[in-house]
Amino acid sequence: MDDQTFILFGASGDLAKRKVLPALYNLHRDGKMPRRFTVIGASRRPYSREAFQGLVMDALHQYSRHPVDSDETTAEFLDRFHYVPFDAGNADDYTALKGYLEDLEARAHLPQNRLFYLAMAPDFFGTIAVQLQASGLTSGTGWKRLVIEKPFGHDYRSAAELNRQVSAAFDEREVFRIDHYLGKEMVQNIEIIRFANSIFEPLWNNRFISNVQITSSEVVGVEDRAAYYEKAGALRDMVQNHMMQMLMLIAMEPPSRLNTEAIRDEKVKVLRSLRRYDEAKIAQNVVRGQYLSGRVGGQEVVGYLNEPGVAPTSTTETFVAAKLYVDNFRWAGVPFYIRTGKRMKEKMTKIVVQFESIPDKLFFNKDSSLAPNLLTIHVNPVQGMELSINVEQEESGRVEPSEIDFTRESRNSPEAYERLIEDAMTDDPTFFTRWDEVSLAWKWVDPISEAFQQHQPLYPYIAGSTGPAAADELIRADGFRWWNG
Amino acid sequence: MDDQTFILFGASGDLAKRKVLPALYNLHRDGKMPRRFTVIGASRRPYSREAFQGLVMDALHQYSRHPVDSDETTAEFLDRFHYVPFDAGNADDYTALKGYLEDLEARAHLPQNRLFYLAMAPDFFGTIAVQLQASGLTSGTGWKRLVIEKPFGHDYRSAAELNRQVSAAFDEREVFRIDHYLGKEMVQNIEIIRFANSIFEPLWNNRFISNVQITSSEVVGVEDRAAYYEKAGALRDMVQNHMMQMLMLIAMEPPSRLNTEAIRDEKVKVLRSLRRYDEAKIAQNVVRGQYLSGRVGGQEVVGYLNEPGVAPTSTTETFVAAKLYVDNFRWAGVPFYIRTGKRMKEKMTKIVVQFESIPDKLFFNKDSSLAPNLLTIHVNPVQGMELSINVEQEESGRVEPSEIDFTRESRNSPEAYERLIEDAMTDDPTFFTRWDEVSLAWKWVDPISEAFQQHQPLYPYIAGSTGPAAADELIRADGFRWWNG
Repeated sequence: MDDQTFILFGASGDLAKRKVLPALYNLHRDGKMPRRFTVIGASRRPYSREAFQGLVMDALHQYSRHPVDSDETTAEFLDRFHYVPFDAGNADDYTALKGYLEDLEARAHLPQNRLFYLAMAPDFFGTIAVQLQASGLTSGTGWKRLVIEKPFGHDYRSAAELNRQVSAAFDEREVFRIDHYLGKEMVQNIEIIRFANSIFEPLWNNRFISNVQITSSEVVGVEDRAAYYEKAGALRDMVQNHMMQMLMLIAMEPPSRLNTEAIRDEKVKVLRSLRRYDEAKIAQNVVRGQYLSGRVGGQEVVGYLNEPGVAPTSTTETFVAAKLYVDNFRWAGVPFYIRTGKRMKEKMTKIVVQFESIPDKLFFNKDSSLAPNLLTIHVNPVQGMELSINVEQEESGRVEPSEIDFTRESRNSPEAYERLIEDAMTDDPTFFTRWDEVSLAWKWVDPISEAFQQHQPLYPYIAGSTGPAAADELIRADGFRWWNG
Repeated sequence: MDDQTFILFGASGDLAKRKVLPALYNLHRDGKMPRRFTVIGASRRPYSREAFQGLVMDALHQYSRHPVDSDETTAEFLDRFHYVPFDAGNADDYTALKGYLEDLEARAHLPQNRLFYLAMAPDFFGTIAVQLQASGLTSGTGWKRLVIEKPFGHDYRSAAELNRQVSAAFDEREVFRIDHYLGKEMVQNIEIIRFANSIFEPLWNNRFISNVQITSSEVVGVEDRAAYYEKAGALRDMVQNHMMQMLMLIAMEPPSRLNTEAIRDEKVKVLRSLRRYDEAKIAQNVVRGQYLSGRVGGQEVVGYLNEPGVAPTSTTETFVAAKLYVDNFRWAGVPFYIRTGKRMKEKMTKIVVQFESIPDKLFFNKDSSLAPNLLTIHVNPVQGMELSINVEQEESGRVEPSEIDFTRESRNSPEAYERLIEDAMTDDPTFFTRWDEVSLAWKWVDPISEAFQQHQPLYPYIAGSTGPAAADELIRADGFRWWNG
């Protein structure tokens, strides 16, 4: 890993404290950082360097997965931190930042390798990109990279405009768009499961797979993010990015080589083959919902409309289920069901690949009720894999599924942000989203957003449930069921 | 299950005590027996009925998997037992047995359904079959069945002669040849795993499977069976029956229906396709061995030649490994490796299906050392299934195999004999061997027996090892290795 400076915009924000700073610390503790490595925090707050270092320590104590020992390693880590007060709308502040940075680089004999990390409200993404360029911050003698958090736009048009601004300052190859689902261990394992094992690829098509189900359910509600969520909703917040990414990894063709661009080339082809829906098809294939009050984990919770910051007449969806088709030779006829929501029964992200059923009467099961084989990839909170196989149960003598599995619930494994920040720092963009993926995902989502604005029904569902009945009906109509629990 | 009488020849013998009597008791205790059910023990010993019942109780206390409670159920069970002293070579004893049996049936209003179970030395199998017929014991008004233990002959010629005698008294459909491996839970599960799951059949051929390994290793030596074993050896004792049966179940085509005769039709086709070896090919593809002294489970044990009852110049093999080919479209080019021996390192019966390796360089593994996928069926002593899948290991970040599995080590499950006796009593011959299977297996084995008698080398191996080095070389020459442990 090259020696470099990590410029963290939004350094005092929630994301920085919860994810970015702990990730940097854990990478440091695991010995994964370059020898000379500096962080400049930048945010509106007028911190001193010491005050910012205090904030860093607080964040680590609260959120680091490795315990924070008061040892030399921690002291060394903290010593890397600097701070510059910074208003993204003020051109002078870029100049000041540049001065501070160049001075630091010179004093520390650091190459001018600069990673700009935007851990802040999306409103400023474009401005910052433009100003980084204008101020000369991106014109150092070393390399430059931009790490940018979601949301990347709120529709295709805004995303394209943002991309235009970003592209003025950074080449596509220098832009690392974070989708933190791509940092999750089992999401990264999808391509390994598919392509490092000879038994799956022959089965991975419409001859042997009957449907695929991708679920990401949360138990939390909108929390304190109503300002953002009211404008986003589940479709933009989850479907356009995370759900699409998991779909792409499951459905992609084997890449010609397992390198970054070959993989991303194949991923984007999935989106190109994704069936577009007109308004009538959206009504048939997409279900949206909004949570009512209910009980989650034994506790009474309010409905979405009673959440702080939510308009009492809001029609923002907190749940989306949809049936998708990837119209290519591999997947013709195989429905991909996706489902995501807040205030659901269970916190769970998983992908279930349901294989074709054994034809009726082929096997001598008295009531022809053989369960289909299922490959389940547990992404969160359990991480692991499970294959459900019919065997004769010794006690009943009946042929019923047994699960063969491994799971990794308990281990202290690197978090998504650690993996992704490490990747960005080492210049591996494999698990970041490329512009064509983002743009095609928006183009697929936009007509649905529009339909939601029109007369698409908004189904209420009780908090703590598995979503509105219409989502169950969507899949039941095809003769399938959601594999819950 | 029909009311019936179970006539147990060899009632005081080791097999009766260890396996048959406990199996009957456990079936009784599990409520699987018909309401009216009688056992007549027959052997040379001049027991009274009470003395025989005492022997039964002793056997149960020693070998039953269900504890033997002194309750009504046990008393009821014991009350079903009768005894007739019996010399198989004496024609009068058949008449006496017939008289006793008919009297019993008349008094108990039992239908003349008679199951004759030969739990005794094979020398008498033919005689008994002939005499059962001659005495009229097989001419009752109900059905008749013959359950016969291995060995069924010691070569094709003797087996055919025995079958001629048996056929005089019983139709093929009335003959239940026991191969107790076919009573083992996971052996019975092979066809369920293959045909009740949609994911295996597409992979089950030479395109996706690189080789199959069937191992049955024992830690015991010849024990007190030298008289039999000296004439048999591992080839006749294990390969002709148990190993061939497992091979057939793994390699068979899907039957047109999953019923008994359809399955046995497909099984026998495997033997028809099994490549025959001439003497030169036997030398290349079959390895035999004999154990030397060594340590097994921490204990010093003597070599085969020093076992009681073994001739000091014996060339009887206690180990056989072989490479087999099933020359049909499904399996062309796929080697099936079999291996069995006494005084091996580990007590273990398992089948490993090794799938094709991922082509080199296809996956971005630094040193191209991806392990192949393995499906392991654990038959004994562990029962279960295991699939080895490459995933990224979270700690090392390397792509290495994880096992996904279930095993059933601890449960108190029905023993092979319970399953098989229940099947025979209910007239289900699925897991018994048909004459054409037996005869073809002998025809395959006979040339190898002959080669063993000639100049085939007999490799010594140290007790407690995995067999002679020549067996490792046999598989290594093809670029594979035995999956031990």
